[in-house]
Amino acid sequence: MKTMPGKRVLLTGGSGFIGRHAIGRLVECGYDVHAIARNPSPDVVGATATWHVGDLLDEAFQQSLIAAVRPTHLLHLAWYTTHGKYWTAPENLDWVRASISLVRHFVQAGGQRLVCAGTCAEYDWTRDSSFEETAPTRPDTLYGVCKNGVREIVDRYASTQGVSSAWGRLFFLYGPGEASARLVPTLVEPLLRGERAECRFGDHVRDFLHAADAAAAFAALLDSDVTGAVNIASGRPCSLGMLARTIARKLARPALLHVESRAATIDNPARLTADVRRLANEVGWRPRFDLDSGLDDVLQSYSIRSERVPC
Amino acid sequence: MKTMPGKRVLLTGGSGFIGRHAIGRLVECGYDVHAIARNPSPDVVGATATWHVGDLLDEAFQQSLIAAVRPTHLLHLAWYTTHGKYWTAPENLDWVRASISLVRHFVQAGGQRLVCAGTCAEYDWTRDSSFEETAPTRPDTLYGVCKNGVREIVDRYASTQGVSSAWGRLFFLYGPGEASARLVPTLVEPLLRGERAECRFGDHVRDFLHAADAAAAFAALLDSDVTGAVNIASGRPCSLGMLARTIARKLARPALLHVESRAATIDNPARLTADVRRLANEVGWRPRFDLDSGLDDVLQSYSIRSERVPC
Repeated sequence: MKTMPGKRVLLTGGSGFIGRHAIGRLVECGYDVHAIARNPSPDVVGATATWHVGDLLDEAFQQSLIAAVRPTHLLHLAWYTTHGKYWTAPENLDWVRASISLVRHFVQAGGQRLVCAGTCAEYDWTRDSSFEETAPTRPDTLYGVCKNGVREIVDRYASTQGVSSAWGRLFFLYGPGEASARLVPTLVEPLLRGERAECRFGDHVRDFLHAADAAAAFAALLDSDVTGAVNIASGRPCSLGMLARTIARKLARPALLHVESRAATIDNPARLTADVRRLANEVGWRPRFDLDSGLDDVLQSYSIRSERVPC
Repeated sequence: MKTMPGKRVLLTGGSGFIGRHAIGRLVECGYDVHAIARNPSPDVVGATATWHVGDLLDEAFQQSLIAAVRPTHLLHLAWYTTHGKYWTAPENLDWVRASISLVRHFVQAGGQRLVCAGTCAEYDWTRDSSFEETAPTRPDTLYGVCKNGVREIVDRYASTQGVSSAWGRLFFLYGPGEASARLVPTLVEPLLRGERAECRFGDHVRDFLHAADAAAAFAALLDSDVTGAVNIASGRPCSLGMLARTIARKLARPALLHVESRAATIDNPARLTADVRRLANEVGWRPRFDLDSGLDDVLQSYSIRSERVPC
């Protein structure tokens, strides 16, 4: 692919769960990619990007980096994401601060278009619905409140400054390289060891998207002129029980899987699904993986040959 | 007044329009006052506070200051307030960043109670009502969006960390030392020179509070255990025409005042008034000045003897 003159993107979280997949998609879209990471993984640094190693929480680093790169585009994926902690961690405030200052420096340096990663945790989870982007926000966690606050501030600031901005709201992700405590690894890893795996909320319905698709959706959103909030999701709701059973069948360990149907709670509601019409019709993007091929991809990352069983 | 052991407040904006009046009230409440200012005015540095001169936008200064002072309380009044510019200025983002990081350092250093200055611009101004604190927020300006975003983040962060926090929503202020472009000086100053003064929105109704009363209300709020948003206002709505005519009468220049009744607009609605029941009943605070004595105080600051005419 040939880099288009003048399309220079600064990518934060470039070696992260989504970011590592974003580089290739951005290059395909014609961007000169400048990726930031604190500790770039050896398996991503070979990608076609200029790497900048540093701490995004350090404002002096941000400022000198933006002055040096002078990006036309910003794709801001980095945030504090330690599983089990990020919902309430004080580090959320550090990322509010860093995000606000990053966007400010980007715009001051002549940036034209920016996209940040948001979350379905911005929505009002007491509403049992497929969330449209226009649905009221009412985040119930520090993480959701911080993301939602940054969204409102960045959106208004960008429009005040005549800069184009969008906000990709992520739902539930899976993919190669996930932390062991996240849903799919908690199913795959014990089953691979021949141990019992548990799915406690088998009737809960979620929207799952492969991380590589999430990255491709972000690249497409950045390269569009769509503004405001856009759900980044598959648009194909699936129960946790169905997901778990698919994994168990693929690993030929159905007897080791125990699916329960525990009751929903306020912070773990029965349905969290996305209306993806903006993403499909306005951005013009659709996922490459379905859950079946996506789980195959995950299992291959564990060096496992799996049977293909339709989800 | 005697300083209570262990009540040590860090006051930001200590030499500002409200902050300069806050020091005395905080001392009366028993606080050891540590005030921050970039350029403390000579007329306030004599007040009974320990002054820390520095730039609150500089995080290293913030951090070392909090480490040195170890405040138990934080009263955060500082923000970008240049008249005519602050509604849309990019500097609002700098103050979001500084406010978030200030609160984070304060809490990390063991802070127990914090109060920040908010604004009636957080409310939905398309609702023509006396705003209760529970009214929906829907800020329509970058300033309002930034303040509202900081409020939501700080409120949730503080409760997550077990720290007590409140948010004082200011309405319309007047007092000695106002910038010449603000409402009261635009009436007083031409009349004092014997020139024509104009009040274009004579039928618009607002809640006016003397800056010294706003400072006293903040001190009382800080010293209470009331949490969440609290309107800081007089609770006595007054039309701009009534305000202007009172000033003109006090200066014995009624013929030089021209009052118009231009139509309301979305960003300049007919009524912006406050429900002050939380402030009166929960905080237990009431203003010392009414508009009549408050305007006398302003006019005295211009070294003018005015007739006392009831508002």
